[in-house]
Amino acid sequence: MPREDHVVVAVAGRGFENAKKFAALHNIPKVYASYEELARDPDVEVAYIGSLHPDHRDSIKLMLEHGKHVLCEKPLTMNAKQTEEVIPLAAEKRLFLMEGVWSRFLPMYKELHRELESGSIGDPLYIHVTAGYDMRHLVRVFQKSLGGSVMLTLGIYCLNLITRVFDEDVPRKVVAVGDVVEGEGVDQACAVSMEFSNGRLANFASSSVLKLPTTAEIVGTKGTIKLGFPFWCPTEMETPGGKRTASFPTLPVPSYYVNISGLRYEADEVRRCILAGLLESPDMPHKDSRTLAVLMDEILRQIGVDYQGL
Amino acid sequence: MPREDHVVVAVAGRGFENAKKFAALHNIPKVYASYEELARDPDVEVAYIGSLHPDHRDSIKLMLEHGKHVLCEKPLTMNAKQTEEVIPLAAEKRLFLMEGVWSRFLPMYKELHRELESGSIGDPLYIHVTAGYDMRHLVRVFQKSLGGSVMLTLGIYCLNLITRVFDEDVPRKVVAVGDVVEGEGVDQACAVSMEFSNGRLANFASSSVLKLPTTAEIVGTKGTIKLGFPFWCPTEMETPGGKRTASFPTLPVPSYYVNISGLRYEADEVRRCILAGLLESPDMPHKDSRTLAVLMDEILRQIGVDYQGL
Repeated sequence: MPREDHVVVAVAGRGFENAKKFAALHNIPKVYASYEELARDPDVEVAYIGSLHPDHRDSIKLMLEHGKHVLCEKPLTMNAKQTEEVIPLAAEKRLFLMEGVWSRFLPMYKELHRELESGSIGDPLYIHVTAGYDMRHLVRVFQKSLGGSVMLTLGIYCLNLITRVFDEDVPRKVVAVGDVVEGEGVDQACAVSMEFSNGRLANFASSSVLKLPTTAEIVGTKGTIKLGFPFWCPTEMETPGGKRTASFPTLPVPSYYVNISGLRYEADEVRRCILAGLLESPDMPHKDSRTLAVLMDEILRQIGVDYQGL
Repeated sequence: MPREDHVVVAVAGRGFENAKKFAALHNIPKVYASYEELARDPDVEVAYIGSLHPDHRDSIKLMLEHGKHVLCEKPLTMNAKQTEEVIPLAAEKRLFLMEGVWSRFLPMYKELHRELESGSIGDPLYIHVTAGYDMRHLVRVFQKSLGGSVMLTLGIYCLNLITRVFDEDVPRKVVAVGDVVEGEGVDQACAVSMEFSNGRLANFASSSVLKLPTTAEIVGTKGTIKLGFPFWCPTEMETPGGKRTASFPTLPVPSYYVNISGLRYEADEVRRCILAGLLESPDMPHKDSRTLAVLMDEILRQIGVDYQGL
């Protein structure tokens, strides 16, 4: 995003030294050792929350209580109950709140929806999508107290694609099996089947120990759309009319994450919505965050992972 | 199969005119209007049962009672209860009985197992497979009384691949959703997730209304094996070492079914087993027919299809 649209005025981190390094790297003028200090900064209009999952609920509330609009990384919170604490608070404070499901704002995802609307694959009736990396070097993904859970970390991208393509609040039925780390109680793999109205079905799998194809196939009555690896920020899409490619903006500094410069499209959306006086984005409305939370609660319940007592 | 190994001595069909046409086309000397007559023919050593699913149990029993070895098309019967009627009878009569899961005997499936044993993909941890055709022109697939059921018709190939690759009698858990024809009570689509020991997971989908990829992917810790369309009798397999192809024997007469000449390999197996005095095939043992039947019962129960009262 150009500087005239958007300026990062401050960064806060509980690891103060890391926050200072981050600020220096990105030319951010103010650095805080706590989110509370950042929340009190009158120059901050919008807070982007990218802390560990279990912190989201409290940080969202903190920012809303201090009059800041909020963009929070997915998952919005740890469960549907927490989601029902933050969404009404945003509405009450008349502040913008959005879960950062960045895929939805990528040009390729916009093209996907145009392709679906064009009818080129007829009625989509089956979706298969996988999301899997070997993440055993990332301790946080396997620790319950840090919100680990491959469902919350990667599976949410599968759920997002499926529920978005089938354009439905809640599927008729969702069934799941999973691989839960003995003792720790964190899911490191899951396989899920979903049933929607009109005979539409979906399967997805997610893993934090196995590299899965991490692509998506949407099978319709007349053809198929395939999203390339990684499907949540793909550079390739196959349609009945041929292959399409997308590029991502170049980054001034290297990043660990693939195609991460695509985050700018969700940041654009936040700006657009706030300038238009919207309190939620029509492309990632609160009801969709509720749907994702309810589905993840149910899937985790079925595979025996409990993030409810938070 | 060469004539010196195997001769088709008789054919029987309830549609006598069709049976006569079939016999003329394939130079089969004797034609019967009923299975009972064929069962009484002393020249018949082995009966191949390819009638509609609900007839299998009774025809298997009829042939066994008359001292014939039996190769019966998949599914062996309509449910686990029926399977428990025919398997002990074969054992008691000291006759060979095998469910015709022909995939298992194809050279490509033998290669698949050699590839898995080679360790080229490491430990297989995830399988995704689909089996779907638009079969709306085939009335029998949608009629309960004719044993319709996409699970029994196509889904069984998915279950066969998954349970065979994971080399396990029964998975820890199977969960399913499906699309059942209103009124008729026949499944025309299903999506299934399965959990095996050691974190191994599988998803499959089957449909009799939608053309699905009908390919299989076996994802391991070091790589992936893909079986091409249609995965139950594929001509292509992708492995980490490259693509392999297979051809099928040419047929003297054209057939509606893809690569159907591959049935010869299961016929070879029947001959081999009987000559060796075996009562079941080590590659399609009775326990595997039991496993398939129990799994199909459970999947159909979960999606609300009832073939139990038979």
